[in-house]
Amino acid sequence: MKKIYFDNAATTQIRLEVVQEMTRIMLNDYGNPSSSHSFGRVSKNLLELSRKSIAKNLNATAQEIIFTSGGTETNNWILKHAVKDLKIKRIISSKIEHHAVLHTINVVCEEQNTTVDFVKILPNGAIDLTHLVELLQENIPTLVSLMHINNEIGTVLDIAYVAKICKQYNAYFHTDAVQSVGKTAVDLQKIAVDFLSASAHKFHGPKGIGFGFIRKGINLNPMITGGEQEKGLRAGTESLHNIVGMAKALEISCQYLDTEMTYILDLKNYCLNQLKTIFPDLKVNGYQTTYNILNVLLPIPEEKSSLFLFNLDMKGIAVSKGSACQSGSNKSSHVLSEIISGDDLKKPSIRISFSHYNNKEEIDCFIEVLKEI
Amino acid sequence: MKKIYFDNAATTQIRLEVVQEMTRIMLNDYGNPSSSHSFGRVSKNLLELSRKSIAKNLNATAQEIIFTSGGTETNNWILKHAVKDLKIKRIISSKIEHHAVLHTINVVCEEQNTTVDFVKILPNGAIDLTHLVELLQENIPTLVSLMHINNEIGTVLDIAYVAKICKQYNAYFHTDAVQSVGKTAVDLQKIAVDFLSASAHKFHGPKGIGFGFIRKGINLNPMITGGEQEKGLRAGTESLHNIVGMAKALEISCQYLDTEMTYILDLKNYCLNQLKTIFPDLKVNGYQTTYNILNVLLPIPEEKSSLFLFNLDMKGIAVSKGSACQSGSNKSSHVLSEIISGDDLKKPSIRISFSHYNNKEEIDCFIEVLKEI
Repeated sequence: MKKIYFDNAATTQIRLEVVQEMTRIMLNDYGNPSSSHSFGRVSKNLLELSRKSIAKNLNATAQEIIFTSGGTETNNWILKHAVKDLKIKRIISSKIEHHAVLHTINVVCEEQNTTVDFVKILPNGAIDLTHLVELLQENIPTLVSLMHINNEIGTVLDIAYVAKICKQYNAYFHTDAVQSVGKTAVDLQKIAVDFLSASAHKFHGPKGIGFGFIRKGINLNPMITGGEQEKGLRAGTESLHNIVGMAKALEISCQYLDTEMTYILDLKNYCLNQLKTIFPDLKVNGYQTTYNILNVLLPIPEEKSSLFLFNLDMKGIAVSKGSACQSGSNKSSHVLSEIISGDDLKKPSIRISFSHYNNKEEIDCFIEVLKEI
Repeated sequence: MKKIYFDNAATTQIRLEVVQEMTRIMLNDYGNPSSSHSFGRVSKNLLELSRKSIAKNLNATAQEIIFTSGGTETNNWILKHAVKDLKIKRIISSKIEHHAVLHTINVVCEEQNTTVDFVKILPNGAIDLTHLVELLQENIPTLVSLMHINNEIGTVLDIAYVAKICKQYNAYFHTDAVQSVGKTAVDLQKIAVDFLSASAHKFHGPKGIGFGFIRKGINLNPMITGGEQEKGLRAGTESLHNIVGMAKALEISCQYLDTEMTYILDLKNYCLNQLKTIFPDLKVNGYQTTYNILNVLLPIPEEKSSLFLFNLDMKGIAVSKGSACQSGSNKSSHVLSEIISGDDLKKPSIRISFSHYNNKEEIDCFIEVLKEI
């Protein structure tokens, strides 16, 4: 049975060129970038070339890119230390953020002298920007943390606009861009965010590596201490093969961005149209969503929904119910419960997320399986 | 020019079998271990098999092994959260710990209601255990953090004995075992430590992955929040290829431990004897040191010492001055300054650290180069 992977918002297949590059590094360049001898210098050079490449692809400077173990660590670091080191008294966020942001905000509010205000979510899944402005009018040292692209429903926030209004009200702005970096064009000269989090495994790079963008001039302390790596901002021997792999993955993603976006959007539209032939009453969760995520509310009875997903899995088709990052939990999605109401809450939603590795034959196969079950 | 790598305490060459295993995982098993579909279950299974393998090699249970991004993160997590979650009022440590412990203790003491006592270091580089017992006699909730094998001089602490006296005085005991796991036999049923930190790249595994051992029955909260990974103890998508690689590296290291220890000890003794033919007045830093680390004080004048290391590097020979983990800094070693005094402080020390990839021809070549310069 051919397996079909439609869960590219959870994680992506690593590109072959990335695996090859990482294997090459693991076989040849094992020096510790902190060592001053030639083995160390070779590694240090690869590290800094990777940083430059990533910076270039985001129109940032190399010194603004700090390597971490992934999106979650980056979100933890930026939220905890922006609040602490920049003397933030209030965080503005939303209830549809990833748990890496929401749970960390809870910890920050418990441990530090900070409160949180949640900006309203519109019924279409968008952030209520009028409410955001209202909140910003209160004169409190504020950090805004709002994600660029929602991982569950794919709604897109105009972060350039949010950055502008944050500037206007002297608030710092952090965006969790784990679903957008490597998948959409992010120009950090045009988008005036102060902080951004990204993760390699969402753009066909390796798992366990990511980075934070910290705008030049903003000084944070490290969350992980004990070494001068990353200019003292993140201690620990650098995961060189992962970092080189991440830079390579971002480079290729940016190179083929337009072609792949067009291709994937076509798949998404095709899939939606095919789904409508089976479920004419199907609703799409979220409005004006990104090209690779399709989250749909299926008009099937509650009692059949568990069996439905089970059957898809049995047929080798991987889609997601809610978000995979909730690690095996069966809890209903905190994002969907913000935008769905009434009887619809009892109906199952599935997230189908595509990559350039998918094709229409897979969608046809998916639709055939849906017809059977 | 053939290059010679004598800096295996800084980092090690990844074993070929480990690279092959990691490459296989990267090419085939890209599911997110948190996804409930078949792609996710395959990854989850690999993750848990790796955990069981690591636990088995340390005579621990799988649930006691928590994956992190490396030794530094593990040290940060355990120190910060043991103090916070177990209501520790005093840390006992030593001034010859790795900066990942020392700097983190500074942060913990600044942020939490805790003080630190440093146990005395004997002139031979060993921990003064009589002083440790004296300190433990004070009736304060205490965490002891002492490393198993010192990364700079290779002194070995009898952690089974320290664990025993910690138990006797109701203190928790953490050991940074980054230099010992995979390099010496560690039986966690016989050694009653409460916490242990380890890092894969020190035992021929990949960089950017490690684990913490948390003895069953002790509850810590996560330092990195936002997902239910690692039973809620460490959020973030798991670096599957790195974890599988780490388990493989530990498995092979443990399998060939006796053979490789004998082989490497022979290299070390050979090297020391050869060095003495050039420098009859050479002193070894540390006493009864581990089989793979040789730290020597060279009886050459201060003004020649920089040039000396530079020349070694020019000849393609990688040894370390102090510790590589100090990331390019030129500061003198905080470890050596604890055990060297008087005029000797001005003389250069070098750390030569071996692996099974080294051989006597390399040592001969090293000695020839030393004679030249």
